[in-house]
Amino acid sequence: MSTLDTSSTGLRALPSPGTVRSTVLPLVRQHVSALEPTLARICSYHLGFVDEHGDPSGAASGKLTRAALMTAAAEGVGLRPEDVRSPAAALELLHNSTLVHDDIIDADELRRGRPAAWKVFGPDLAILAGDALQALSLQIVVDDTGPGRAEISSAFAEALRLVLAGQSRELTARLGPGADIAEYHRIVEEKTAALLECALVTPALRAGGAEHVLGALRGAGRHLGLAFQISNDVEDIWGDPAVTGKPVRGDVQRRNPSFPVLAALDAGGPVSERLRALWHGDGTTAAHLQEMADLVEEAGGRRTAEQRSRGHLDSALEHLGRAGLTPAATAELTALFDRIVNRTA
Amino acid sequence: MSTLDTSSTGLRALPSPGTVRSTVLPLVRQHVSALEPTLARICSYHLGFVDEHGDPSGAASGKLTRAALMTAAAEGVGLRPEDVRSPAAALELLHNSTLVHDDIIDADELRRGRPAAWKVFGPDLAILAGDALQALSLQIVVDDTGPGRAEISSAFAEALRLVLAGQSRELTARLGPGADIAEYHRIVEEKTAALLECALVTPALRAGGAEHVLGALRGAGRHLGLAFQISNDVEDIWGDPAVTGKPVRGDVQRRNPSFPVLAALDAGGPVSERLRALWHGDGTTAAHLQEMADLVEEAGGRRTAEQRSRGHLDSALEHLGRAGLTPAATAELTALFDRIVNRTA
Repeated sequence: MSTLDTSSTGLRALPSPGTVRSTVLPLVRQHVSALEPTLARICSYHLGFVDEHGDPSGAASGKLTRAALMTAAAEGVGLRPEDVRSPAAALELLHNSTLVHDDIIDADELRRGRPAAWKVFGPDLAILAGDALQALSLQIVVDDTGPGRAEISSAFAEALRLVLAGQSRELTARLGPGADIAEYHRIVEEKTAALLECALVTPALRAGGAEHVLGALRGAGRHLGLAFQISNDVEDIWGDPAVTGKPVRGDVQRRNPSFPVLAALDAGGPVSERLRALWHGDGTTAAHLQEMADLVEEAGGRRTAEQRSRGHLDSALEHLGRAGLTPAATAELTALFDRIVNRTA
Repeated sequence: MSTLDTSSTGLRALPSPGTVRSTVLPLVRQHVSALEPTLARICSYHLGFVDEHGDPSGAASGKLTRAALMTAAAEGVGLRPEDVRSPAAALELLHNSTLVHDDIIDADELRRGRPAAWKVFGPDLAILAGDALQALSLQIVVDDTGPGRAEISSAFAEALRLVLAGQSRELTARLGPGADIAEYHRIVEEKTAALLECALVTPALRAGGAEHVLGALRGAGRHLGLAFQISNDVEDIWGDPAVTGKPVRGDVQRRNPSFPVLAALDAGGPVSERLRALWHGDGTTAAHLQEMADLVEEAGGRRTAEQRSRGHLDSALEHLGRAGLTPAATAELTALFDRIVNRTA
């Protein structure tokens, strides 16, 4: 589950509300352009605004999943998209800050089908660029004078804390003894779900929503994150690299906590044990990865993962239903949730 | 001017107000301990609370210069030290976040006389640990419900933006065409002075200080940063490594913008030209560094730097005088400023 984002391909844009791309992206671009020139250039490159020479580029900026969720949730609590324009831009920047550093940490050379920022500008400047995106994101919410400013700032800071905790827990598991399924859930709730929760809850904080609404939206984000990440883990092993935009089986190769593998290891029996021996060995050839993938499937890991992802999506929609948003927004979010989880569909 | 901090040695603690070490440091420690376990361990190591095995350590935590400035300034605007305890802890964390990443970027293997965090835990986890300190710092100010919460949060976010801009500008200069004296000033105002300004101005924001007070404190911080950095650059070239705790002439070796060098290059004449040839060459042996140091001195770079540092310290004190703080606090800050700039005294 190495992917923190739903935007790794950049190949098939999520048909988010037209308002999102046309309102949030220019604001993201404007903020990034105002950074110190070198940082502006690196961040603009990472976001697909310019190529490695600083010339305008038609590259993908990602699907703006989090901004789309926030904008739809805003409509659901009676706000206009522009009421959450700043936090939506800030959340995309925060998400991208984690991607810039994550690519350095994972030595991932590709991001959205182009060389990762650290490959183009070197890891030193890329560390600063990731820091700058993180700082910029928090500066935007801190300086946003709209209602709920303090609560939204707190929600962003807490979401960032959780993402970093999850990334560290994941890296620790990868370098060390691995993770069990309970630890996996915790990692995903932190690393993947926290920003999705933040996207859904921010409009309610701005609108002064009741605690049960906030709780329902948080629950929706948590289960959405789990559904997405498990689905992403399945895609890592059996997806088409031409569609995912990533090298196949990167998680298995790195022994990154991956739900289908953990479910297969948990199943017990001889197939499970054979997998365990390979997983704890150091084989990373295509043949090794294929054998592990076959064993995961044979031990039922793929089926369990697919079921579990669907189950979490159902739970996410159930929580969403309890939030009492407008029917139009609920329908829009339902469609968005489905696209996020089943992006290969 | 590679050093972002006034705490590189850890050998001679700045005799800050006793309240600072006894009130701020435990809060720093408490916040860091609450991080995800791996991040907590790395950050606790960096801050000198534990050794590389996680066992209690008597290592230096730095001089808490920024917390000391903030605490003294608080007294000066009629606040108690505990009124700025949270932002003082947050500012130390913010400063340390920049040190953790800076050591990776500069490949500095020593920090406060011990192996840098990235040498002990690897650069990947150290990137996350730096991120975590940055996030924690902003979370503390955002969640601090004392007066001036929004203004203080903004000041912190802006200070961080400036530090990162300065670091990027410095790294860009080092990797590229170098910097002139105007660019040097800009880098130092961002990289070094921004956090000192933040330290001085935060109590006034909490106390609802008038704009002319804020302006005077900002000016004091700006000149203090310039005085300190120029003095630090002199120390890099002619200081005693046993006192500075750093390898001698690291800035010259890296061709990092350094005031005495820039002043000597600016002086013109044959000595200056000989220096220019060496500075733009790639010689980094001890003999090369010694020759450059001698040429800088011969061209008057050292004398100019020492004069300029004293001039900025005088300006800092002049601005401080205009802030209208209590006489006791002004005296305390005057002594602190002097210790910060003339730490070899």
